[in-house]
Amino acid sequence: MGVIGGDGIGPEVVAEGLKAVEAAGVRLDTVEYDLGGARYLRDGTILPDSVLDEWRQLDALYLGAVGAPGVPPGVIERGLLLKMRFDLDLYVNQRPFLLPPDVDMVVIRENTEGTYAGEGGFLRKGTPHEIATQGSVNTRMGVERCIRYAFDLAERRPQKHLTLVHKTNVLTFAGDLWERTFHEVAAEHPDVETAYNHVDAACIYFVEDPQRYDVIVTDNLFGDILTDLGGAVSGGIGVASSANLNPDRTGPSMFEPVHGSAPDIAGQNRANPVAAILSAAMMLDFLGDTDAAERIRAACTDAPAGSTTEIGDAIAARLQGD
Amino acid sequence: MGVIGGDGIGPEVVAEGLKAVEAAGVRLDTVEYDLGGARYLRDGTILPDSVLDEWRQLDALYLGAVGAPGVPPGVIERGLLLKMRFDLDLYVNQRPFLLPPDVDMVVIRENTEGTYAGEGGFLRKGTPHEIATQGSVNTRMGVERCIRYAFDLAERRPQKHLTLVHKTNVLTFAGDLWERTFHEVAAEHPDVETAYNHVDAACIYFVEDPQRYDVIVTDNLFGDILTDLGGAVSGGIGVASSANLNPDRTGPSMFEPVHGSAPDIAGQNRANPVAAILSAAMMLDFLGDTDAAERIRAACTDAPAGSTTEIGDAIAARLQGD
Ligand SMILES: CC(C)[C@H](C(=O)O)[C@@H](O)C(=O)O
Ligand SMILES: CC(C)[C@H](C(=O)O)[C@@H](O)C(=O)O
Repeated sequence: MGVIGGDGIGPEVVAEGLKAVEAAGVRLDTVEYDLGGARYLRDGTILPDSVLDEWRQLDALYLGAVGAPGVPPGVIERGLLLKMRFDLDLYVNQRPFLLPPDVDMVVIRENTEGTYAGEGGFLRKGTPHEIATQGSVNTRMGVERCIRYAFDLAERRPQKHLTLVHKTNVLTFAGDLWERTFHEVAAEHPDVETAYNHVDAACIYFVEDPQRYDVIVTDNLFGDILTDLGGAVSGGIGVASSANLNPDRTGPSMFEPVHGSAPDIAGQNRANPVAAILSAAMMLDFLGDTDAAERIRAACTDAPAGSTTEIGDAIAARLQGD
Repeated sequence: MGVIGGDGIGPEVVAEGLKAVEAAGVRLDTVEYDLGGARYLRDGTILPDSVLDEWRQLDALYLGAVGAPGVPPGVIERGLLLKMRFDLDLYVNQRPFLLPPDVDMVVIRENTEGTYAGEGGFLRKGTPHEIATQGSVNTRMGVERCIRYAFDLAERRPQKHLTLVHKTNVLTFAGDLWERTFHEVAAEHPDVETAYNHVDAACIYFVEDPQRYDVIVTDNLFGDILTDLGGAVSGGIGVASSANLNPDRTGPSMFEPVHGSAPDIAGQNRANPVAAILSAAMMLDFLGDTDAAERIRAACTDAPAGSTTEIGDAIAARLQGD
């Protein structure tokens, strides 16, 4: 397993995640990778091909957060985080949100295309007649495999309910492909109840009526927005976990908290490690150790307030007491 | 002034808006236009050029909501609502949110380009190799005039604070144009304090810390999302008003509530008319009758609960009692 602590609070929270895994009695071989904004500022390295090739032999990657002040926007995001998602074909970004009794939902975010493809450019840059374009690329293959994953997941949950979120009334091309594919796959899953919401309406429902959601499937950018909002309405971004999955297991999957590197509180032992710990639990799930994953999740319930290490220690103590 | 009641609850809430205007002692010449999803289903009419030409001679348009079940997604949105915004060059979509003591912000949404341009298409449609593209088109001219409007507005408010919201770390082309333009215009407004947030982070702040915002400027799609969310965190979408402005006054501006046609509660006298009434107040502001606008806003404060007409009558009574 590869570990990328990354920048800011990343290494601090990853340490607590690994502590919880160990306390749950799971032994993982770890290899650490020093990558992220700080490394880039130090020697210009972002993500060497040799590292990417090494990773292809692993089963999982565990990442804290990347991004540092002083690095131009996009450099690390595009060169490291999105490169991992794209080159390792981590096409499902799974983000669960749980805050009983109101919130129990999972967002399945397409993770390898859409506006994240980086399509676009400038015309007459720097002049009064400049045009900047930014394209969203959506393939039937990419949309379908993500939607299929979401239906399979919904089918395994008690509520068996799946909502497509898009903006079909404005994004008529991309929206049409998503909607058509959704309906076609739905026909193969008559036991799953389906719904559709525009993304703007979904934001309202996240705040006012999150109970209506079970599983949500959506595109890359809408998923980015909805999952930060999902964190905000279910205990805060400090507890929001995520898995970047290659469900076909042709390479490693990657597990990371939804939150960023939060440079403003880095190094102060103040970050909430629960999101990272719950992401480690998602990793154990994916690696087949559902029992340890469940125990970690249980140990995170009503985690005490405190410093990063205090919270991590308390959770580890609960696990060792199991 | 042109009045388009539209579909669903649109005509009901528009009637209350006009009632409030009259109760505030303002006389407006109105011409009604029967347009929207229902009209389209009846005779195929969406927005004839002749109507658009008539509108060019007016100073304002007041719209309820458009969109009806049975109309394919995008037909009315693109053919009527977005056509108004684009063809009448209503390049600023201004949406204020007020919920003392926490929320007092105005979102300035670019209203004539971005992904709303409708750029895109299909390749190999209906095959397993289908690709659907959707483009965002951003011009220096379009971005700059919107940002200038936002700085001018921020300058006139006590807090003098303006936040750019985008996703510069992923949408590197469009984001770069927005950011560059923002910084250049900022240099001309040293008295306005500025900030930048990624759209996903902004969604969290809307829920957890809306006090941080005064004026926000953002692109068309992010503005769509943020303003529905803004409604949800400041009293509900039933009170969220909006103005689609042509600040150069080369044609009419258009005023409409943020909410949609809500077909599920149409015709039941259940819709909250406050969003439409506050939109009418924005119209009076723009037409120069700031005094009447202020009185209408005051009359909407702590509006009683009740049916559409009860709320409208109560607000009208307050205005007549002024
Ligand atoms: C850092 C950024 C590129 C990333 C994204 O937009 O996907 C983050 O916000 C996330 O949600 O994982
Ligand atoms: C109806 C729809 C096209 C519209 C938009 O997306 O702009 C609406 O959501 C709005 O915010 O005015």
